[in-house]
Amino acid sequence: MISFICDYSNGVHPKILEEMANTNDLKTVGYGEDEICLSAKEKIRKVIKKKDADIYFLCGGTQTNLIAIDSLLKPYQGVISVESGHINVHEAGAIENCGHKVLTLPSHQGKLSADDLKQYLKDFYDDESYTHMVIPGMVYISYPTEYGTLYSKSELQSIYEVCKEYHIPFYIDGARLGYGVVAGENSMEDIANLCDCFYIGATKVGGLFGEALVYCQNNTPDYIVNIIKKHGGLLAKGRMLGIQFDALFTDDLYFSISKHANDMAKLLKQALKDKGYQLVFDNPTNQTFCILDKQKIQQLKQKVQFTVWQKYSETSYIVRFVTDWSTTQKQVEQLIEVL
Amino acid sequence: MISFICDYSNGVHPKILEEMANTNDLKTVGYGEDEICLSAKEKIRKVIKKKDADIYFLCGGTQTNLIAIDSLLKPYQGVISVESGHINVHEAGAIENCGHKVLTLPSHQGKLSADDLKQYLKDFYDDESYTHMVIPGMVYISYPTEYGTLYSKSELQSIYEVCKEYHIPFYIDGARLGYGVVAGENSMEDIANLCDCFYIGATKVGGLFGEALVYCQNNTPDYIVNIIKKHGGLLAKGRMLGIQFDALFTDDLYFSISKHANDMAKLLKQALKDKGYQLVFDNPTNQTFCILDKQKIQQLKQKVQFTVWQKYSETSYIVRFVTDWSTTQKQVEQLIEVL
Amino acid sequence: MISFICDYSNGVHPKILEEMANTNDLKTVGYGEDEICLSAKEKIRKVIKKKDADIYFLCGGTQTNLIAIDSLLKPYQGVISVESGHINVHEAGAIENCGHKVLTLPSHQGKLSADDLKQYLKDFYDDESYTHMVIPGMVYISYPTEYGTLYSKSELQSIYEVCKEYHIPFYIDGARLGYGVVAGENSMEDIANLCDCFYIGATKVGGLFGEALVYCQNNTPDYIVNIIKKHGGLLAKGRMLGIQFDALFTDDLYFSISKHANDMAKLLKQALKDKGYQLVFDNPTNQTFCILDKQKIQQLKQKVQFTVWQKYSETSYIVRFVTDWSTTQKQVEQLIEVL
Amino acid sequence: MISFICDYSNGVHPKILEEMANTNDLKTVGYGEDEICLSAKEKIRKVIKKKDADIYFLCGGTQTNLIAIDSLLKPYQGVISVESGHINVHEAGAIENCGHKVLTLPSHQGKLSADDLKQYLKDFYDDESYTHMVIPGMVYISYPTEYGTLYSKSELQSIYEVCKEYHIPFYIDGARLGYGVVAGENSMEDIANLCDCFYIGATKVGGLFGEALVYCQNNTPDYIVNIIKKHGGLLAKGRMLGIQFDALFTDDLYFSISKHANDMAKLLKQALKDKGYQLVFDNPTNQTFCILDKQKIQQLKQKVQFTVWQKYSETSYIVRFVTDWSTTQKQVEQLIEVL
Repeated sequence: MISFICDYSNGVHPKILEEMANTNDLKTVGYGEDEICLSAKEKIRKVIKKKDADIYFLCGGTQTNLIAIDSLLKPYQGVISVESGHINVHEAGAIENCGHKVLTLPSHQGKLSADDLKQYLKDFYDDESYTHMVIPGMVYISYPTEYGTLYSKSELQSIYEVCKEYHIPFYIDGARLGYGVVAGENSMEDIANLCDCFYIGATKVGGLFGEALVYCQNNTPDYIVNIIKKHGGLLAKGRMLGIQFDALFTDDLYFSISKHANDMAKLLKQALKDKGYQLVFDNPTNQTFCILDKQKIQQLKQKVQFTVWQKYSETSYIVRFVTDWSTTQKQVEQLIEVL
Repeated sequence: MISFICDYSNGVHPKILEEMANTNDLKTVGYGEDEICLSAKEKIRKVIKKKDADIYFLCGGTQTNLIAIDSLLKPYQGVISVESGHINVHEAGAIENCGHKVLTLPSHQGKLSADDLKQYLKDFYDDESYTHMVIPGMVYISYPTEYGTLYSKSELQSIYEVCKEYHIPFYIDGARLGYGVVAGENSMEDIANLCDCFYIGATKVGGLFGEALVYCQNNTPDYIVNIIKKHGGLLAKGRMLGIQFDALFTDDLYFSISKHANDMAKLLKQALKDKGYQLVFDNPTNQTFCILDKQKIQQLKQKVQFTVWQKYSETSYIVRFVTDWSTTQKQVEQLIEVL
Repeated sequence: MISFICDYSNGVHPKILEEMANTNDLKTVGYGEDEICLSAKEKIRKVIKKKDADIYFLCGGTQTNLIAIDSLLKPYQGVISVESGHINVHEAGAIENCGHKVLTLPSHQGKLSADDLKQYLKDFYDDESYTHMVIPGMVYISYPTEYGTLYSKSELQSIYEVCKEYHIPFYIDGARLGYGVVAGENSMEDIANLCDCFYIGATKVGGLFGEALVYCQNNTPDYIVNIIKKHGGLLAKGRMLGIQFDALFTDDLYFSISKHANDMAKLLKQALKDKGYQLVFDNPTNQTFCILDKQKIQQLKQKVQFTVWQKYSETSYIVRFVTDWSTTQKQVEQLIEVL
Repeated sequence: MISFICDYSNGVHPKILEEMANTNDLKTVGYGEDEICLSAKEKIRKVIKKKDADIYFLCGGTQTNLIAIDSLLKPYQGVISVESGHINVHEAGAIENCGHKVLTLPSHQGKLSADDLKQYLKDFYDDESYTHMVIPGMVYISYPTEYGTLYSKSELQSIYEVCKEYHIPFYIDGARLGYGVVAGENSMEDIANLCDCFYIGATKVGGLFGEALVYCQNNTPDYIVNIIKKHGGLLAKGRMLGIQFDALFTDDLYFSISKHANDMAKLLKQALKDKGYQLVFDNPTNQTFCILDKQKIQQLKQKVQFTVWQKYSETSYIVRFVTDWSTTQKQVEQLIEVL
């Protein structure tokens, strides 16, 4: 059975396995202060062209989001997100568990509108009762969004300008950042310049697990290691994270993996259009959302693994197909054939 | 330079790397529900001889402790630990961050005394003002302790009896469990019978990272997956954890790794005694604590990596040497020679 | 200047002052276990006709809401509320500060729809990814709502049925309960039968401060006093709360205060309608929301204290007038005259 | 039966009742911004001779402690206290509920030693593993202590110097501050100069309830009202707190109440000594701790209310007698007679 169920259903990119084997006999210090982690950080700094970016390797998107957000918010502040934001829907209340409210604004194909944001903040401080309310202390978006859509450069700039006007940090969840940067207007360098903090996801882009949290504007919170430790996010064998990022940022592996998956998704999207299926979002990244009727879904399930995302009508559903580094053109063709 | 700095300064046991490579092309579901995780859990259940033990794979000791403790405590309860307990000293307040007080009792070479515990609980409920106090809701110990010492079987039994009398769960931190079970009176099966919940550490016993949290008495908290997710502990590629435990619990690898490290430590301890050095704790596991004067420490640092643990007198310190799966007899001999 | 700014801008009802003076020389035990508190609780039990209702006196609505909700929710659960619910908007994140998400549904003139609730819960458990989400653990409404509107008896019944179907408690915020029970279909007895927990507000209904939290269905959480203490809600001189409720529930004072304020509001509402002003909500309680243009507001501010609630259009605002036990018919007539 | 059970078992000082009656017909704004609160704050500023002290009125000691501590600590920090500190023992984990560890040092008759503190902080930062530990972020003491003992001026100065050296705030719990300032070396002005934040307790010194939290060094945390609200500590009818402090700080009422209670305690202490009873602490304030055997306790209980504090030996207990504004010389003489 071929699988398009997710970009974390495969193993790890062979280059990473190779670097694990090559470095296995080294003795290093723990907790991410080893030479492999230092090398990986240096490579990331080169890619984003920020010599003083401060980088921490963590395990998993929810952990990274909660540490980033909790480290940047004051206890009386909340974080602004669109309603469909991962932190608002699919992190089991991790942000609230840190005491912070997620303040929601409408989602536009998964994206936050700078105008909505500006209006919200203006209204907030115009309301005299704001001392009885959660203070908006941060803006969260994901790039690509949960629906695989992308912000243009000017959209990011507009959001960042509003953030600066209100002196609140702008944070970007990059669980699938690679797919976004190779498909859209914004390079890694742009991302690093257009926000205060973001993370580079490896779990869904060829790694074993692991995310690189980047404080870009000389804004690392004091005692960040204690904060990470307090949340259970400090890995003893930190090198295991360093190894992955070192491999991913050698010879542009992170980007070639991403481009390959996007290309496979493009093939699939074109075929779906050609066959008359309706795509739900216009997105250039590795996720494909389309509408299938119940019968087709049953038939497909015999031969393909994929996700039934949500109900669309009485007789149809939105389904999701995801590609990754290991997806082959042959697999896409098989899927197209079954469709 | 030879290193005795910690049991997480090395890479991963080759058998694990091998199993990673062997399974790398498999497509599996995420979040630990894949077949490799299921196989690993089955192997652990066989070792502890509990068919219905419920097992979750997590990343790192602090994360595991906070999830175990937060999942078993009510919000108004605290956890009892000796003062030297890892959760009380070296987890950056992870337990308090979940809202729970660590209620401390005296440490006896790192161990909790059942008598102290019994007296504490009796006095607590005799005090009429207990409605203004944190309710003791759980007992925490580590096996081996932070000083490498071990509880006898009757010591564990006595603590567990007190816990049962007061209807509070007994939880065992097994960050270095392997070293303890091969050196002491209590097998894995005993551990599983003498507590309500414990974890089997892999990070410090040959793995990449990873701990297996075991609810042994049909006592898994409701919605445990949500609890794990909320704390950022749910790994997307959960199989990476399953692979390690599957390898470690095949052909007794977990135990042979542990025995080897203990044997290396025994060599070292005997040599230290022979040379007239004072050992601080009488412990049969892979950590060795002894007293060295400043001059000796300086001299040793030229050739060996190890940890200066804490001040002992004006002119001397307690130092720690740790062995692991990768320590060779030759390295121990080199260390002895330098000493 | 006459004031309609709020129902907590006045002093305390004279009967309460009187009872304070009468009991001032008594020596009692602390923390609400004194004979005055016991008497007050007995009087409340008679009114709600529940002999075994369990009652705790607290200070202020936010404190009561956070204690009620935190005491009834599991740590991985959230509370369902309409978007305009007080806990969602005007409690500065008190619920999130306890680690719980407020899960919002649309507001219908301030009210929750049982149909919306039922659909939400059904969809929630139909979604396979709910292990990554906050579990809905409780339903919160206010009676009257933040806009002074009321639920019919059948509306409350329908909500309670859904709650029972999903085994989650139904909690009613009664900050202004008195105004609601004398104006609407539901008596105090009905309220106590149609939910699991509610509170009777005194701060806004003639008292100094204080709310009576009632667990109605033999469902008091274990160690509730510890929970109250932990949140800083246990008053040493608990009798001060008992005195107020004892006075308020003697000779139906709570209800006569409420009826008087509603009657005054009715006069005002009729006059506003007669003069052609637009009322925003059709509500029979002590709050009156109407639309005024900027000029009228400026003019009114010279002679009357009231609240500008929110923008309605470019040239007009929603304003709020509130009556209470101390509002006189003459004051209402003066306000009408100025209008 | 005469009562020496606590200083919150009586009603309120008549002057306060009087001011409540006098101001009852005023209409004021809510949440502590009314003219009575402003007047009370001005009076306190005069007494402590700090024109820019920032003052907030709260309800109850635990609430005040948790708000003060949570407002001044960073989320990764803990608060240092002696083991017998109220926050460590009798606040049901309120501080841990805010995510902060209470870091304990030994108690010397209830007092913290500046030397212990200095050594602790030095050792803390000398330990390289401090990134895995809770950062000490504040020092807490109570004045008088839980045992009624007092710090000399030089003791307070020494502690404050250590705090300044480590840039951490010094906070004083003044639940019974009045009794301390009239009995000891430190005036209210001294207290305000020798710490960063403290509170003036009214609940136990003649009030209904209420504590005045004072930020003395231009160090009010940003958004303090939101922080208070978030913890459920913002009283709608804030004036009720203002009235009490306004009365207490008119004509030195706070101090005359305190002096009277201390004088009554002095009479009792002298009589106890004369009769050969052993006093446990040498303290000049309104609490008296002495040792009585079981038989004497049984006999006394027939005629007097008091607290059995804790076991002293197999046959005897420490008991506590507390005096307050309402204690008469005749009552003390009756107690002495029974003894």
